[in-house]
Amino acid sequence: MTDQGRHFTLKNDAGVQLANGGLLEHYELAVCTYGALNENADNAILICHALTGNQFVSGTDPSTGKPGWWSQYVGPGKAIDTNRFFVVGVNNLGGCSGSTGPSSINPATGSAYLNDFPSLRVRDWVATQHWLMTQLNIKKWYAVVGGSLGGMQAMRWCVDFPEAVERCVVIASATSLTAQNIAFNELARSAISKDPRFADGKYASQNTLPEDGLSLARMIGHVTYLSGTGMNAKFGRSLQRGSFELGNSDAVQFEVESYLQYQGAKFATRFDANSYILFTRVLDYFDLGRDFGGDVSKAFTQCDARFLVIGFSTDWRFSAQRSEEITDALIRATRHVSYACIDSEHGHDAFLIANTRYEALLRSFIEGEPKHG
Amino acid sequence: MTDQGRHFTLKNDAGVQLANGGLLEHYELAVCTYGALNENADNAILICHALTGNQFVSGTDPSTGKPGWWSQYVGPGKAIDTNRFFVVGVNNLGGCSGSTGPSSINPATGSAYLNDFPSLRVRDWVATQHWLMTQLNIKKWYAVVGGSLGGMQAMRWCVDFPEAVERCVVIASATSLTAQNIAFNELARSAISKDPRFADGKYASQNTLPEDGLSLARMIGHVTYLSGTGMNAKFGRSLQRGSFELGNSDAVQFEVESYLQYQGAKFATRFDANSYILFTRVLDYFDLGRDFGGDVSKAFTQCDARFLVIGFSTDWRFSAQRSEEITDALIRATRHVSYACIDSEHGHDAFLIANTRYEALLRSFIEGEPKHG
Repeated sequence: MTDQGRHFTLKNDAGVQLANGGLLEHYELAVCTYGALNENADNAILICHALTGNQFVSGTDPSTGKPGWWSQYVGPGKAIDTNRFFVVGVNNLGGCSGSTGPSSINPATGSAYLNDFPSLRVRDWVATQHWLMTQLNIKKWYAVVGGSLGGMQAMRWCVDFPEAVERCVVIASATSLTAQNIAFNELARSAISKDPRFADGKYASQNTLPEDGLSLARMIGHVTYLSGTGMNAKFGRSLQRGSFELGNSDAVQFEVESYLQYQGAKFATRFDANSYILFTRVLDYFDLGRDFGGDVSKAFTQCDARFLVIGFSTDWRFSAQRSEEITDALIRATRHVSYACIDSEHGHDAFLIANTRYEALLRSFIEGEPKHG
Repeated sequence: MTDQGRHFTLKNDAGVQLANGGLLEHYELAVCTYGALNENADNAILICHALTGNQFVSGTDPSTGKPGWWSQYVGPGKAIDTNRFFVVGVNNLGGCSGSTGPSSINPATGSAYLNDFPSLRVRDWVATQHWLMTQLNIKKWYAVVGGSLGGMQAMRWCVDFPEAVERCVVIASATSLTAQNIAFNELARSAISKDPRFADGKYASQNTLPEDGLSLARMIGHVTYLSGTGMNAKFGRSLQRGSFELGNSDAVQFEVESYLQYQGAKFATRFDANSYILFTRVLDYFDLGRDFGGDVSKAFTQCDARFLVIGFSTDWRFSAQRSEEITDALIRATRHVSYACIDSEHGHDAFLIANTRYEALLRSFIEGEPKHG
């Protein structure tokens, strides 16, 4: 029996003071919870989403009609068992799945924020999630869990609210992006901003949509989320149409080309271009060591949580080496940390895909009782 | 004293029978030669260019005013010494640096080919280069040399005209692209074709130019030609403008972002979009083993040349592993082959950049006398 979750929106009229100095006076968060909060309110797990995720971590995502993005690992009897845990999914501020974002109406002007939506940092998300926590009457998260950009939120939680996190799971993440990663994000942003229908972010007010640009942005991202090995295994040099027979002039298309075009087009109908640009900038701006003279281990010295850090063998967008850097910094900070690199051919996408060892590891960490506890 | 080369155009009115079955009835090749052909006509070296190269391998490239693309390694006293060797650079058919290509007038219609230019394969280039060879009264190349797409031409030369190649240097290349490589090429093509000013390839007839698309295509390519290590060393997370100070809302731009935008814009003014699409397809279509049941070593069994194969440690677009595959196939074919992987942080671009060990290796192979010779 799947738990379809309880989907609701919470409104904060006290606003949030943002890292960039601005005050967002009103905002809403779209939330989906699975399972039930127990009497002691000590079984709540926050799942932070990545670039294109949302609040629908399990059950069915109503926007796609497909299983929630992490339903492989969250649900009744799953590694994060909603029969036992109260799981909270939240669409990040600035998103396009129900929380206040660029497409929302700015009460001050009566029209949509569009590209005037304030620039955000990971810490702003954590601040709004902390407000959400109080609204849900949760004093301390049993665990905060996230992959990729979600892992950045999980780490930031432990630094900014150490008393509020008992366990932290950081998957396929990093304490800051590399120059190459920023470059890939800039390619995606350029794909969007160079689309004339983007109209400098004002597309919604002009009844256009930068579908071509958003589609290409997704295609660029998608290639970097897969591994070379995985792509060779899945597509190789197989042809969608045409032939290389000598004398044959039919146009040739490789399977991998049509696959990427399909993925891009599908994404362009469901995601907001301003949110995509905003979120890639949040990724670029994140730097956990920045407030600590560049020493990430000093940041982790603030933390009380027990950590599980997971990398994947063929992930090159957030390589296992980046997870090892997180682990090493936690060790230097003498925190409680376990690390594993999971063999997978699925590149960065591995954090979303079924994998027995990964599942067992998550379950063991989430369900296991700490000896010192 | 730099050798500025002799630049000329040769016209073939017998045409070339293409692999796709078509006949290109007339074509011109733009050629630049450096040094002098000796009496025995046995000191000629053909340098095949890669995706965005041209005939100006040394001296000054008149289109940019900058040194030719391989002047680091070709010139008087250089690893390929034009005091001793007669070096031939040729703009590949379909290009945009003087040879017949999409922007040229189709004599049959009186207007430019644009996107009606026939699809090409590496073997078509080799066929036209073979015609060029006869025009220059060369019976046998002392060496055929190429990096990346140029290396594919060098290998194809040895298979299609074994009697015409004495030495072959294959740098940072592969016997066929991986699915990931095809994917990156498709991203670049999509960047161009999704630009409304591309006008389905008819931009020149509409007095527009898909500069945004071509710029983005170059940015995508460029990121894949650099290594993650090299990008961290060169750019890291340095800012071009803005600040992450809390409370500061100035827009932030990383150096790597402005660098890529600059490189893209520069390229868009000098390269033709239809040529770019055409050439990336030539890359995708190349598969040296295709005529030999997929067994590359059977292809190499046709060859007589001595081979030098070179890979670079941080190249992930054409990884050293691909060069090792070439080497292993040559070994299985019991050909004469040397292989080296050069340490460099410059990724795929390393084949263009100054490197002492790489230079010494090239020089030793080009100048060394074979003991069995």
